[in-house]
Amino acid sequence: MTLKVAVAGATGYAGGEILRLLLQHPQFLAGKLEIGALTGNSNAGQKVTDLMPHLPQLADRVIDSTTIEVLDGHDVVFLGLPHGFSAEIGAALSDDTLVIDCAADFRLKNADDWEAYYGSEHAGSWTYGIPEMPGHREQIASDKRIAVPGCFPTGATLAILPAVKAGIAEPDISIVSITGVSGAGKKSSVAMLGSETMGSLKAYNTAGRHRHTPEVAQNIAEVTDKDVTISFTPVLAPLPRGILTTATLPLVGDVTEDMARQVYEGFYSAEPFVHVLSAGAQPQTQNVVGSNMCHVQVEVDIKARRLLVTSAIDNLTKGTAGAAVQCMNIALGFDETAGLPQAGVAP
Amino acid sequence: MTLKVAVAGATGYAGGEILRLLLQHPQFLAGKLEIGALTGNSNAGQKVTDLMPHLPQLADRVIDSTTIEVLDGHDVVFLGLPHGFSAEIGAALSDDTLVIDCAADFRLKNADDWEAYYGSEHAGSWTYGIPEMPGHREQIASDKRIAVPGCFPTGATLAILPAVKAGIAEPDISIVSITGVSGAGKKSSVAMLGSETMGSLKAYNTAGRHRHTPEVAQNIAEVTDKDVTISFTPVLAPLPRGILTTATLPLVGDVTEDMARQVYEGFYSAEPFVHVLSAGAQPQTQNVVGSNMCHVQVEVDIKARRLLVTSAIDNLTKGTAGAAVQCMNIALGFDETAGLPQAGVAP
Amino acid sequence: MTLKVAVAGATGYAGGEILRLLLQHPQFLAGKLEIGALTGNSNAGQKVTDLMPHLPQLADRVIDSTTIEVLDGHDVVFLGLPHGFSAEIGAALSDDTLVIDCAADFRLKNADDWEAYYGSEHAGSWTYGIPEMPGHREQIASDKRIAVPGCFPTGATLAILPAVKAGIAEPDISIVSITGVSGAGKKSSVAMLGSETMGSLKAYNTAGRHRHTPEVAQNIAEVTDKDVTISFTPVLAPLPRGILTTATLPLVGDVTEDMARQVYEGFYSAEPFVHVLSAGAQPQTQNVVGSNMCHVQVEVDIKARRLLVTSAIDNLTKGTAGAAVQCMNIALGFDETAGLPQAGVAP
Amino acid sequence: MTLKVAVAGATGYAGGEILRLLLQHPQFLAGKLEIGALTGNSNAGQKVTDLMPHLPQLADRVIDSTTIEVLDGHDVVFLGLPHGFSAEIGAALSDDTLVIDCAADFRLKNADDWEAYYGSEHAGSWTYGIPEMPGHREQIASDKRIAVPGCFPTGATLAILPAVKAGIAEPDISIVSITGVSGAGKKSSVAMLGSETMGSLKAYNTAGRHRHTPEVAQNIAEVTDKDVTISFTPVLAPLPRGILTTATLPLVGDVTEDMARQVYEGFYSAEPFVHVLSAGAQPQTQNVVGSNMCHVQVEVDIKARRLLVTSAIDNLTKGTAGAAVQCMNIALGFDETAGLPQAGVAP
Repeated sequence: MTLKVAVAGATGYAGGEILRLLLQHPQFLAGKLEIGALTGNSNAGQKVTDLMPHLPQLADRVIDSTTIEVLDGHDVVFLGLPHGFSAEIGAALSDDTLVIDCAADFRLKNADDWEAYYGSEHAGSWTYGIPEMPGHREQIASDKRIAVPGCFPTGATLAILPAVKAGIAEPDISIVSITGVSGAGKKSSVAMLGSETMGSLKAYNTAGRHRHTPEVAQNIAEVTDKDVTISFTPVLAPLPRGILTTATLPLVGDVTEDMARQVYEGFYSAEPFVHVLSAGAQPQTQNVVGSNMCHVQVEVDIKARRLLVTSAIDNLTKGTAGAAVQCMNIALGFDETAGLPQAGVAP
Repeated sequence: MTLKVAVAGATGYAGGEILRLLLQHPQFLAGKLEIGALTGNSNAGQKVTDLMPHLPQLADRVIDSTTIEVLDGHDVVFLGLPHGFSAEIGAALSDDTLVIDCAADFRLKNADDWEAYYGSEHAGSWTYGIPEMPGHREQIASDKRIAVPGCFPTGATLAILPAVKAGIAEPDISIVSITGVSGAGKKSSVAMLGSETMGSLKAYNTAGRHRHTPEVAQNIAEVTDKDVTISFTPVLAPLPRGILTTATLPLVGDVTEDMARQVYEGFYSAEPFVHVLSAGAQPQTQNVVGSNMCHVQVEVDIKARRLLVTSAIDNLTKGTAGAAVQCMNIALGFDETAGLPQAGVAP
Repeated sequence: MTLKVAVAGATGYAGGEILRLLLQHPQFLAGKLEIGALTGNSNAGQKVTDLMPHLPQLADRVIDSTTIEVLDGHDVVFLGLPHGFSAEIGAALSDDTLVIDCAADFRLKNADDWEAYYGSEHAGSWTYGIPEMPGHREQIASDKRIAVPGCFPTGATLAILPAVKAGIAEPDISIVSITGVSGAGKKSSVAMLGSETMGSLKAYNTAGRHRHTPEVAQNIAEVTDKDVTISFTPVLAPLPRGILTTATLPLVGDVTEDMARQVYEGFYSAEPFVHVLSAGAQPQTQNVVGSNMCHVQVEVDIKARRLLVTSAIDNLTKGTAGAAVQCMNIALGFDETAGLPQAGVAP
Repeated sequence: MTLKVAVAGATGYAGGEILRLLLQHPQFLAGKLEIGALTGNSNAGQKVTDLMPHLPQLADRVIDSTTIEVLDGHDVVFLGLPHGFSAEIGAALSDDTLVIDCAADFRLKNADDWEAYYGSEHAGSWTYGIPEMPGHREQIASDKRIAVPGCFPTGATLAILPAVKAGIAEPDISIVSITGVSGAGKKSSVAMLGSETMGSLKAYNTAGRHRHTPEVAQNIAEVTDKDVTISFTPVLAPLPRGILTTATLPLVGDVTEDMARQVYEGFYSAEPFVHVLSAGAQPQTQNVVGSNMCHVQVEVDIKARRLLVTSAIDNLTKGTAGAAVQCMNIALGFDETAGLPQAGVAP
């Protein structure tokens, strides 16, 4: 039997990255997974080669409209749609279809948070797709509706979770996450022009305004009973892909760097996609480009009485499309690492 | 009378930038300031055009050795030397010479801090060249020995000082400063190759190890009686010039964003080189490239109970060479803004 | 008497760069040149600080509409408008006003070329503003209507002209010009997003389709009776500013590299803004960023029987706004170099 | 049986890229191909994770010295050594070992060319590893010694060969190839620092001096009896990976763009790694990053009477390591595309 996979919103960066990964997936190479409908909106009717020339294998395929009719009959549907639209399509698809949503619609459990940050009615929440969070891998394996996390929450959660869970640091967290420009998506705008972003750095959606703030808080709250406070500052930097997250947390008691390192190495010992770096090394986004890895480092700043955790991911791979494929692998019972590079495209 | 100015260590990035600024200085254009000796070490005997082709006016000049004999007889000597060497040269120059040191030797007042961070004997401290710090402009005006601040401390101090001085935030400060690659200087290394730095982000000298940490603490301590705690995380980003600093501090009482803004606008109202952005705008390093400006924004994150301050400078201009020329202007009684661009080379 | 200068289309990259240069112009600093109306279209009514935060001196100025009423009464009007609109405004301004047009409207002399490349009616031609072309400086000095050349034609003409004029190479020229992204202007588009342009190279408007092709041919034809053939390939590269031009021409006779160098050094010996590099050095765009310089190198490829000339300019400075101010200086009898940096903002 | 593969000079960029590709090779994933010795020189004794953190699967492996003893007993040896050293190692390895050399030693057939360009004695020539050249795939399939082509010659040859072979253009070729910085290798130098290369463009080894010039000529000469003339201008641009090649050739007779396109589509119709773009599209290096593809476009410039061909490759993949693995696949009888991505890591 051949699984049929559709990508709705295929022409955005998330969609393109899902396709790049599927095209090198062993199930696809073995003919057991077929790439079905590729849909878009303004792009419907255009050839893939004109929209995503980096995918020559699909060059002659044509983009369909994003409708239930087109998406029906697939075993797996990835959604790379603007938020709001995902909820509508997700509700209409058959319960038997594995639906993996890269938008924000079903990430937040708290309706008030949703409404405060997104300004529309809450559509509900789906199984949240960070398999490395306690209990999540099991939920993903047994569910048909999965919400892929935001790119910033992925980098921040993987950095912070072990420390808070182990109680070695207080969940009063100052996060600065520096991101490449592809995170803003494939939408034309003056602010995201090459001439405005190359050779420049800029914070944005600061002081608690970024929509990923409550998502990080929700994740951290899963492993602690303490109140969670998140100060989140996203910064735009001149690179296409990559997020470097720095998080500082007040130390609890006499935690040493060795103890902190043991917590992290223990937490991630069985994880194929999280690499705790050896002492003295720092995550570098270049080393995870195009891969599904998260590189993590943990250190103790004795003088400032703070734990410093840093992490690097590719926002389009582990931060979006790689996580989506990882969730598909788990949900379908494939090898979790199938088709997902661990080696980064460096330099 | 014509002032004679030497640049020792002229072939590094700081030296080159000092020369770029002097060449457009009105005193130079009016023939009242002359560029004398340009010295280097390994480069002695080479032509400027082979080392700094961006300075065609000096193309045929030849680099001298860095000796007291060569530097003697100048009215002003800028030092762009490796730390350690500055102390030696600085001590040997005539007391009448205005000496402006771009290295670290004379920045720290505390000998223990110096020895802990630099591992050598403390040479003492000179007047510290951030004219925007209370009392410093007057000291600079009346002294012949000036220590130019480090690039990170400049961006961080200008961001943080008003809030701590006004008591609207606690000096328990989490700083993440993201810098372009020219901050590492013109020294060959694998880690600073274009192929290792383009398209990549990386924290370094983390967890209190960066030498600029005690310098920031020293500056903040000048305006508060409270204990100052600095968590400092420098990050390397793929741009030639620019530092974006983000600083978060616990709020004191019911400080609102309007109150915070008034503090900053009041503090900097007479400063020609600090621009407090209007509400909603964020500093962008592109806008200060090649200029001596610092752009600042202050915000209140009510949920996280923190003040967020961000600042942007060009690490080679306001962060080094521009500050050096600004100090020269003050010390010599010139217009403080002479030769120092306020407009950035954007985009 | 104070000269009043307006910039129509002030909020684009050319307009912003003209303002950056005027703000450091000695006539402006001396109070003899005043910055009058700043106009835009969609931006009318907005504050400069929201549109061009790199110009803090003008932060509180407001953008006017681009109308004759607003522009009337100025001594100098710079036009940074979309082509087509320049012709209209240019025709309506008083004959006494010095009008310097940064658009293409009045660059081409041949109406057929205009119509073939721009698809609209030819508005005529004005004095062409490359002062380094034989006879042009004199025309600029005595005229009130000046067409600023295109950025590619500036780099290519300054590279090629001396060789063709001296007859040491045939005007059958293969030009590849690699440009930074600001050349595309401040218009939103998917193709010019940071994520589409960083880390990428791409030729465009190839095979004779680029509108600057006939402009280069027109310039070269001024110094030769031979037929001029131009193969022009523009390439987009990931940097904000800068054009590197490479031109190859068949050698005439037994021309040696020394002879070629003498031709170039002779041709440009009195030019303040063209720097013929010493043998062995190659122009690097970094060295001319923000400056009005053109760096040039000429070499002989004996085996391929071709002359290779390379040049570097900043597309926004010598390629547009710097040339405009240089023409203003000449037309108004100022020192030609006033306000125009020769030192580049490197690194 | 498990094939044992060694990489000599594993810690350079070519070596790292070969390893990245092998780690996702289906033979490796199936346990039929084992990664044996990884050797270096100055790095011997260090852990892979400290040198190539982008390869977490090999993190704990240690670098050996590059000696025959270490390399003996492998079925395949990839050489990523400095030229000169390859010849020595290559000669000492068993005839039964498949040796694939990424250095220049065995690329040139003509001893005079070798000596003129490399200044040392010619070591001979091996089967030249561009499978897309007529007859080469067959030679590669039957040989044990393969010379991987240079990165520039790969991009240029694939662009030019079909036109010259078909006789639609004269082999009097003007080539400008723009490259990312990883082509210069992982060697420290001031000229290749991030601060010297970001935001800058520069030609180098111009006017026939680049060592890849005779290699391109040798390749083109294989398909024509005419004299081949190559004017080659390499340009360094600020991106980590990628080469964009532009080649112009005099047209023969009344060749139209349709005819030219048919020649190219015919020539490459069966090639898995060359993609002739549809009319109007231009190759963009971003679209081939990390992939083994070459994207090609051909156009006719009627006015200039020239054929313009452009191509894009990743210099480390199709330009070096991908070609090496492609040759291994052919020589060992694997599927030629095994382990070699066709989709690029865009954006």
